[in-house]
Amino acid sequence: MTSIAKSVLQKHLVEGTFEVGKEIGIKIDHTLTQDATGTMAYLQFEAMKLDHVKTELSVSFVDHNTLQTDFKNPDDHRYLQSVAAKYGIKFSRPGNGICHQVFLERFATPGKTLVGSDSHTPTAGGMGQIAIGVGGLDVAVAMGGGLFYLKTPKILGIKLTGKLPDYVTAKDVILEVLRILTVKGGRGKILEYFGPGIKTLSVPERATITNMGAETGATTSIFPSDEITKEFLKMEGREDHWNEIPEGTEEDYDEIMEINLSELEPMVAKPHSPGNVVKLSELYGLKVDQVSIGSCTNSSLKDLETVATLLKGRKIHPDTVLGISPGSRQVMTQLAKDGALANIISSGARVFESACGPCIGMGFAPKTGAIVVRTYNRNFFGRTGNKSAQAYLVSPEVAVAVAVYGEITDPKKLGAYPKFDFPKKIELDDSMILDPAEDGSKIEIIRGPNIAPLPDFLPLTESFGSVKVVIKVEDDITTDHIMPAGAKILPLRSNLPEISKHVFEQIDPDFAERALKEKPHGGGAIIAGDNYGQGSSREHAALAPMYLGIKFKIAKSFARIHRDNLINSGILPLTFVNPEDFDKLDLGDILTIPNVKQSIRDGIKPIIVHNKTKHLDFKVTYDLSDRDREIIVLGGKLNYASQK
Amino acid sequence: MTSIAKSVLQKHLVEGTFEVGKEIGIKIDHTLTQDATGTMAYLQFEAMKLDHVKTELSVSFVDHNTLQTDFKNPDDHRYLQSVAAKYGIKFSRPGNGICHQVFLERFATPGKTLVGSDSHTPTAGGMGQIAIGVGGLDVAVAMGGGLFYLKTPKILGIKLTGKLPDYVTAKDVILEVLRILTVKGGRGKILEYFGPGIKTLSVPERATITNMGAETGATTSIFPSDEITKEFLKMEGREDHWNEIPEGTEEDYDEIMEINLSELEPMVAKPHSPGNVVKLSELYGLKVDQVSIGSCTNSSLKDLETVATLLKGRKIHPDTVLGISPGSRQVMTQLAKDGALANIISSGARVFESACGPCIGMGFAPKTGAIVVRTYNRNFFGRTGNKSAQAYLVSPEVAVAVAVYGEITDPKKLGAYPKFDFPKKIELDDSMILDPAEDGSKIEIIRGPNIAPLPDFLPLTESFGSVKVVIKVEDDITTDHIMPAGAKILPLRSNLPEISKHVFEQIDPDFAERALKEKPHGGGAIIAGDNYGQGSSREHAALAPMYLGIKFKIAKSFARIHRDNLINSGILPLTFVNPEDFDKLDLGDILTIPNVKQSIRDGIKPIIVHNKTKHLDFKVTYDLSDRDREIIVLGGKLNYASQK
Repeated sequence: MTSIAKSVLQKHLVEGTFEVGKEIGIKIDHTLTQDATGTMAYLQFEAMKLDHVKTELSVSFVDHNTLQTDFKNPDDHRYLQSVAAKYGIKFSRPGNGICHQVFLERFATPGKTLVGSDSHTPTAGGMGQIAIGVGGLDVAVAMGGGLFYLKTPKILGIKLTGKLPDYVTAKDVILEVLRILTVKGGRGKILEYFGPGIKTLSVPERATITNMGAETGATTSIFPSDEITKEFLKMEGREDHWNEIPEGTEEDYDEIMEINLSELEPMVAKPHSPGNVVKLSELYGLKVDQVSIGSCTNSSLKDLETVATLLKGRKIHPDTVLGISPGSRQVMTQLAKDGALANIISSGARVFESACGPCIGMGFAPKTGAIVVRTYNRNFFGRTGNKSAQAYLVSPEVAVAVAVYGEITDPKKLGAYPKFDFPKKIELDDSMILDPAEDGSKIEIIRGPNIAPLPDFLPLTESFGSVKVVIKVEDDITTDHIMPAGAKILPLRSNLPEISKHVFEQIDPDFAERALKEKPHGGGAIIAGDNYGQGSSREHAALAPMYLGIKFKIAKSFARIHRDNLINSGILPLTFVNPEDFDKLDLGDILTIPNVKQSIRDGIKPIIVHNKTKHLDFKVTYDLSDRDREIIVLGGKLNYASQK
Repeated sequence: MTSIAKSVLQKHLVEGTFEVGKEIGIKIDHTLTQDATGTMAYLQFEAMKLDHVKTELSVSFVDHNTLQTDFKNPDDHRYLQSVAAKYGIKFSRPGNGICHQVFLERFATPGKTLVGSDSHTPTAGGMGQIAIGVGGLDVAVAMGGGLFYLKTPKILGIKLTGKLPDYVTAKDVILEVLRILTVKGGRGKILEYFGPGIKTLSVPERATITNMGAETGATTSIFPSDEITKEFLKMEGREDHWNEIPEGTEEDYDEIMEINLSELEPMVAKPHSPGNVVKLSELYGLKVDQVSIGSCTNSSLKDLETVATLLKGRKIHPDTVLGISPGSRQVMTQLAKDGALANIISSGARVFESACGPCIGMGFAPKTGAIVVRTYNRNFFGRTGNKSAQAYLVSPEVAVAVAVYGEITDPKKLGAYPKFDFPKKIELDDSMILDPAEDGSKIEIIRGPNIAPLPDFLPLTESFGSVKVVIKVEDDITTDHIMPAGAKILPLRSNLPEISKHVFEQIDPDFAERALKEKPHGGGAIIAGDNYGQGSSREHAALAPMYLGIKFKIAKSFARIHRDNLINSGILPLTFVNPEDFDKLDLGDILTIPNVKQSIRDGIKPIIVHNKTKHLDFKVTYDLSDRDREIIVLGGKLNYASQK
């Protein structure tokens, strides 16, 4: 026997050996992009000068930038539509739903590999697929037929026993996992679920768990593919995509933890971290100004049918507002057909388009100083679109109770728990997923003025002669801190010069200007604490600093996807040999690293950094594969891919 | 016999006599505000220091600023909710629908008077109500029990005969009226409908016609109240609000025009004016990038049920996108209950919240250079949110045909015309319209940081010593030109210092800075052509220039609401005695008007303006009642109201 994760990865292994910590290169069957990361990914794919993607399946979704407050979003949509048509990529039109929800419904396949330019790509792990969130460039390379490289992760087996009590949900399972593991505990690991409890969970519930596993820092999360998977695929008219992937056993895992579903109770993640989890009951009575239901974590048919049943005949409390974003057109159509949507609308809920929406600060920002409750996966500082808001993460069932009572309260007040069984048959309609052109050579790419050309990626210089520390930040900085999302900044994702002006804006509004000033004089360095770059997969958190002249970052440790994005962008990710050296560095210090190119090329470590300002030397090291080092020396992955 | 308009106005007449051109003061029964104009109106009402509104009914709606990309919109919503609770005003929550559609459904009453701080307030004229769009300050004064003053308009009787052919709609009636009258032809008039053709039109169809009558510049438009009105009110559970107001006869009107409904065909208003009307057939074959259905003109149950029936089993063309914003929660609930919404969603249409949405550039902006087709009432330059777009206005039926075929085409291609009969009974639910508090004194007003205090209104100076011409514009400048709307600027409506920075932004980006520079040195003047200030009722098009130091505007002529807003803001609206003097003025000219205060106070005209730069004198005049002149001298209506 072997773990599912290992068996799927090994079947796709092309380079390296499956040994924890060693780099492996795996073949990628599927890719997905969303529009906020996708424009850059396709600009990079275009730069690779290929005629057609080389994957089995590549899908381009539009779900992030759907407000369209000016020309930028619709121009991006048309660019993506034309690129998809040209290069053999399916295109899910705006309004068709959230990429992960739609992918789970229409494309996810047990035993296949998927990389997606969105950190919640592991959603498809609920179907027994190895699904990994990566930077856009890694997706571009995979579309071009290149391998995806990763360090062989540990497999953490999470044994589920028992059965969820009423009003305790899959969301509470992953919140419990986060309570135990925190936002760092999954790093370097795949979370693989097994045990008798999994038979009590439907595919969308499993997907809620794998989706939000991303918050632990895990490489991905995965469930077996069983009869329940088969039933779901049957409902989706895709029974032929099913194959069995039996669950692992305890001895298959590097580590094990156990969760007894029967003993769980409703949980909540408090501001400003999804790892800041406590029992819901600890917060009973907290008045709430705004409630949001939806996102790739909690907008499946099961979630929203349950919400509709609970809302039926009830009204939203006058001191709060409720917004609902259905996960996909399929979900919304079903809700509309069976009367659930009418119940939702009658309750006074505001119904938004099928899209990510408020989860990424794309509308429905709360009022100043608001307490907000959301079924989403992230409650990072500022992510609501309002820096003064405090966001709490809960299940949809709890969200309904909060919306009806205007405060955090026991969802059991809503009465008997409504049981939902997936219908045997639903309306299947892929008309909003456009097939690519038969002959892509005839398709002209539509490029609006928001589609800026890629910047130059410069090779590593021989030495860093005078690099100024342009910011110093503490532990657990997210990519939302580095490169904010939201309604004003997300639309700039295809325009690096413009979006770069907003780097670190929420914590240090002068950063971009300060960094850019150093660019012609040796560039800047970023000093960071532990788990730097957690959260969203956005490669703009690396590309934009690169554009601003950042040469290296020294952190106590890096989050996986961000570290990869730094390498891909040609920024050197260094870590302190002695973490206490962090304390000896200050904003404005001038750092030098002589012969850095030679050191990286030859893999010499540690490296001595000289602090000219303080007349101190300190040691840094790096954790880079041979390939990583080659990429850095060449100035990023696009240069590397062009050379190969 | 007498015209409806005259009979209703005379019943409410408190000051003056009903004689064309003479000022009358009428008692106002109802008021409405929407959020974009409402915040300012309520700030003004607060400044009047009253405990409670003195109207029969005042309703505060939230329908404009619903995207909520940051704290500003939700802060405004909470401010409005608290003001409404405190002062005896009903509050229609965000998501409950567009003010005019909801007002028509739940409040409009034959024979009553209504002023609303939105130019499409005449929608309620479809129910036999005198409903006039005004600036926010006029609403504030009416809420305080003050009279509404207007010059007695001419009554233009529009006789409808015949019956609309299939696929010809109420929208085509008003487009035909606009073709004949143009965007100026209604000025100083009330458009009153009579004749056998009106019996073929439901209340929402009549409301489409009165709504968009605003585009002719008319004071308002009105239909009789008859059995059809009664049926509609019965469906709404408001039969007791009905009273008969029989139609007028030809001799009751100052002017008459006739439209034979049987002879009409589908019409379209071309860019960039709702008066630029041609037959749809002239544009067959024009490829269209985006289609929008909704707005206060065309989002009634009849409109959207027809759209749903036509979309059933059809799919949106891959080269276009369709967005639909239902007019009210009542409409949306009905669509959801009877399956129509499922048909709409299945077609691939993007379904937005019940709100004004894209009509005011609040989301769903089209791509660069797009051809767009909309069921809305305005296609002014830039109003889509994209200055490069070309917008065409049509009926919902035509919009469906365009969305399905991807080009402007004959809607008859969609097959037999679906007949829609209003249901006898619908679900009535006012739970999203909050009643005010029993005891308003206990309510604390919630004021977020976007609610800026009102600026000082300064009395008229003795003379204008040195006023610089800071902009010169041509004919038919709309309030959208003066004070743009859209997703970036509308949220600033409660913050005059901020929003003022955007005055004339789309046609002269340096205007605000230039004007503000002149403010300490004698201020600025605006020179304009004919019909200056047409379109939206937004008083910010007067208040913001006032804030920038504009002292007077000299135009060939003014649109009614904007002229009133100028007076209310203390800006002198002057007109050329010799329109050719317009040609002798240039940007940067320094103008002086000695003893202007005395001239206005004593009603002396014409006034001599001296152009110091060109060493020329020219004559201007004004059309101001005694009251208007007193307001101007005191520095605006708020100062005037405080003195009274």
